[in-house]
Order: sequence, then C-alpha cells, then structure tokens
Amino acid sequence: MPHSTQILGISNAIVDILAHVDDAFIDAIGATKGAMNLIDETRAREIYERMGPATEMSGGSVANTVAGFANLGGAAAYIGHVHDDQLGEIFNHDMRSIGVDIRLEPSADGSPTARSYILITPDAQRTMNTYLGSCTELGTADVTHATVGTPKLVLLEGYVWDIAEGPALTRRAIEIARDTGAKVALSLSDRYCVQRHRAAFADAIRAGVDIVIADENEIIDLLEVDGFDAAVAALDATDTLYVMTRSEKGSVIVGGDEHVVQPATRVDNVVDTTGAGDAYTAGFLYGWAQDWPLAECTKLGTHCATQVIQQVGARIEPGLLDSY
Amino acid sequence: MPHSTQILGISNAIVDILAHVDDAFIDAIGATKGAMNLIDETRAREIYERMGPATEMSGGSVANTVAGFANLGGAAAYIGHVHDDQLGEIFNHDMRSIGVDIRLEPSADGSPTARSYILITPDAQRTMNTYLGSCTELGTADVTHATVGTPKLVLLEGYVWDIAEGPALTRRAIEIARDTGAKVALSLSDRYCVQRHRAAFADAIRAGVDIVIADENEIIDLLEVDGFDAAVAALDATDTLYVMTRSEKGSVIVGGDEHVVQPATRVDNVVDTTGAGDAYTAGFLYGWAQDWPLAECTKLGTHCATQVIQQVGARIEPGLLDSY
Repeated sequence: MPHSTQILGISNAIVDILAHVDDAFIDAIGATKGAMNLIDETRAREIYERMGPATEMSGGSVANTVAGFANLGGAAAYIGHVHDDQLGEIFNHDMRSIGVDIRLEPSADGSPTARSYILITPDAQRTMNTYLGSCTELGTADVTHATVGTPKLVLLEGYVWDIAEGPALTRRAIEIARDTGAKVALSLSDRYCVQRHRAAFADAIRAGVDIVIADENEIIDLLEVDGFDAAVAALDATDTLYVMTRSEKGSVIVGGDEHVVQPATRVDNVVDTTGAGDAYTAGFLYGWAQDWPLAECTKLGTHCATQVIQQVGARIEPGLLDSY
Repeated sequence: MPHSTQILGISNAIVDILAHVDDAFIDAIGATKGAMNLIDETRAREIYERMGPATEMSGGSVANTVAGFANLGGAAAYIGHVHDDQLGEIFNHDMRSIGVDIRLEPSADGSPTARSYILITPDAQRTMNTYLGSCTELGTADVTHATVGTPKLVLLEGYVWDIAEGPALTRRAIEIARDTGAKVALSLSDRYCVQRHRAAFADAIRAGVDIVIADENEIIDLLEVDGFDAAVAALDATDTLYVMTRSEKGSVIVGGDEHVVQPATRVDNVVDTTGAGDAYTAGFLYGWAQDWPLAECTKLGTHCATQVIQQVGARIEPGLLDSY
C-alpha cells in the first residue's frame, strides 16, 4: 500500500509560553533546571503569576518534530488532544497551516489545552513547567485504524507514558502499526521521563519499536550503563536502530550493521536550545522517510538542529531545505 | 496631589498573532499594506485559516506604550477591555507582570478578546488585521474617577474612536483629567484612523489634549496640509505639544516656544517595524513624566524605537535604560 502519510506523530499537544528569566527565578520556583517539570493547575497559576511577559507558540516535543517534518516538505499527520479553547485553536491552526493532517477534533469537555511555561535562562537552557491539562484525556479510543491510517512511520513520544492511558494507547498504536506494516519510532523525551518509565520503554522497544531516538543522557539511563561508550557497546547486537544525539558532540546511529558518527556544527550564537533534539529528529526522519542513506539523514538532522538553536522557539521554519 | 501613577493608558486591548508572509499573501487577502485593517469575526477566521504558523504576544498600540513605559521603570496603569478567555488572560498577565495596574476585570459576557493578525512582509513592514471583539464593549461606564484615578498623564488612543462609545468615553476621560489636574495625550494611531475621525480628533484636541503624538502621515492628514513642513508651519501658534515621528528622518517636537529636531539612529538590520512609534512614545513620555527637557525625551524615545525595530514584536524589553 502506498503511504500518502509518511509520518504520524502521537504525543502531548502543548502550547509553549516562553519567557526569559534569570537563574534565581528557577531556584525560587523550585524547578529542576533544564528538565521538563510536570505541574498541576494550581502550580501552573502560581508560576505564571510570578513570570514576566511571555510569548506564546505551539510546542510539544514530537509535535515540533512533526511540524518540522511537514515544513521540510514531508507528508505528516498528528494525533494529540487539545481542548476547544483559544490555545487549542492556536495549536491546531499552526499544525494545519503547514499541512499536518490533524486526526482528532478539539474536545468540548474536560481540562483546558496543555501549556508549558518555558523559562529560558541566560545560558540558553530551557526549563519547562508543563501543565498537561487536556493531554491527559488522550485515550486508547483515540488510536484506531481510522485515526492512525497507513503511515510509513508512527512516531511515539515518551511523555505520553505520563498520562493515564499512555501505556495502553501506545501499545495499541504499535499493534496497528504492525497490522499495517508501518515502522514505529519512539522518542524518549527526557532523562527524567526515562527514569519514570524505564521498564515500560524497554517493553515497548521489545514489542515493536524500530527506531529509538534518544539523547546521551536518555540512552545511558535507559540502558543503565556508566557512559555513552558503554551504551554504544550494549547496543552492538541490536536490530533496532538507535539514533542518539549528543549536543555539541554530534550524533551517533547504531543498529544492525549500521554505525554512523556525525559531528555537530559549531554555533557561536546559541539563542535557545529548546527543540534542538526535536528538530534533529525531524531532519533525520525526513531523510529516513525518503530512504536516504543514514549518513545523509544525520546530516540533515544536524542542519535542522543547528538552525533551531539560533532562534527563540522550537520549530524549524519552512524553506529550510532551500538553504541546505 | 502626588501622582502614584504617572501614566494611565486607555486603549484597545489586543493580542497580536504574528506571522511572516510574502507580498502576494497581502494581495490575496485584499488588505491595505502597512495599515491597520479592521475586520469582523468571519474575516478573522478566513485570514487565520490562510495564514501560516504564528506567534502570539500581547499588543495594542497604546498598550505597547504603557508596557514600555512600565518596563522603563515608570508607574503605569491601564484601562482596556478583554474577555475572560485565554487571550484575555495572556494580555492581562503580560501587563501585570511588568507592574502595570490593570483597572478593569475581564468580562464574562460578550465577544472574545481582540486579536490582530499581524503579517510581516520581507521589507519588515507590518500589515495589521484587527478583530476588535471585546474591545468594542469598552464604555463610558468604565471610565470613572475610580478607574482613572489621579495620574500625571492620561494617554488616549485614536483607535478608541473606532468603537461605539469611543467618542463619549474619551470625552469623559478628558473631563476627569481636567477635574484632577492630569494632562492628556492623544496618540493618533494611524493615518486611516485620522481620516476616519479627523473632525472628532480636532474637537478632542481643542477640548483638552495637551500632547498630540503623530507620525508624519497622521499629522499631514489631521491638518489637511500638503507636507510635513506645512504641518510644522500650521502648528506655529499652538500651545498643544505635537510630538511627531518621521521614521528614518527622526522626530520633531513643536508647541508653545518649543521646537526640537531629533535625528533617527541609523539601523542596518531592521527586523520588524511593529511598535516603533509606540516604543518612541514610551520613551518620550517616560522622560516627560520625569520632567526631563524635551530634547532628552526625544533622545530616549529614539533609543526605544531603535531597539524595537531590531526585534520581532512591539514591546521594548525590561532593562533598556541599563544600556542607555
């Protein structure tokens, strides 16, 4: 069957609320710097009240990747849960306007659309404080043959395991992918997410994940090894493709007979690292979906990440391939 | 009486929805390039559906000036009408978070919070498409001694004349200012706004406006003269202070015995001219509120405008005076 959709993302649909803060602010609110901190509605209100003026834009890790994939010219679809409110409208608009096929309608019931208060410190790190809101209502009923369709790749987000039906709905997605011959990729989201769900991620990978996307910390925590070299050694015999990003140390692809090492591009003016990994993944998977050699996939991934860290905001711009 | 509030702004409270477009897009939607185009809810939906991904941030002309004034360290208050929705929350948060005293609560009834679809073309011009929504419900009942208080300056926005009770509520604001000894400034908003309300603006200025803020086109259209020199000549005998900005030609202040000419600062990297005039006004009025000589007020105004055209977005950042 031809794949009219190349990639289908399933993830938490989030609007980013970005503000610049100093390190004292991160300390004052007790957030873990550089991490995605899950917060409830009360704490969301507290943090927002203490924050300075902000800028709003659509976000979410795998949603950023899907948007980037579409902006590169790929055919993308998306399953995520927003509420029928203004933030939900913004999220869906931004996806649809670049050609992403949104598979779920906004919900009239339940919690408001998720938002992440993203605090950018002078060192260009981002500390995320995420109120999951409407995302928590994504369920197995939303993942069907009708909503998944027949993509070439289903891309799952580690953060989805943070919601109640996350384990069940991702299992269902893997089953549907197997039925339809789609490949499955899993982005591990962040090291704390790996620590929360290590066993579940290992089960999912065994059950049918073809591509694991991880940064250095995430793969070390997933495999419970001492360092990156030990992680690569542990992956020696695997058939799963591991796509591993290492910030300024570049990226490494391991799996089957493959072993690709791609250096990073030196950037003097890092503005905001938000979305670097998501942008890399967009570029890598875009190449993968066109059946490029892996070494070419890593080059485009690197190019996308290099662009996104030189701007505020996590999504790569349309037309990036024109300058590539 | 001491002025715990230096400036009180009364204006349309708007959230900006900013996107980059090409000139063909402006043609396709039939908007007047470089102008503020008033649109209804249906057209707002049409334009948004055709627009690419956007970024949201608080806006509004005089609201930007008030925010800039507060970011410079001045004591500011604000009267504007938002709905009790997510965009309204964003607008009020962004104002309050920099210390602006918000005088009206969000409305539970009526239209959603106003938004302006701001389309930035490659020449760094902005074309605004504004759905006034909740702003249209601002009324004379909202302008009282309690909500206005005793500021040193009441700053009115020309665009307020576009709403039903605008003429009456601005008249009321001028009366209250006269009662309390506050000065009144009027920002003419844009040349099309001047063309819509020329007679009403002239009446208001006669009735009690102490400072008129206008760009070159606005003052020419207000006075119905042939060019800027003719405008300056026509203002020779006035007691009202006219603060006139001329983009790269700098600014000119005329009124009473005053005649100040301030050159612009050369900028090679103009990113987005949105809010240049509003930022100038913030700097100028900040100096005025501290009783600086007018030549110093124009210098700070110029500095603020120079900053804001080198960024995307209309509001000047906190800490600008640190680098001044």
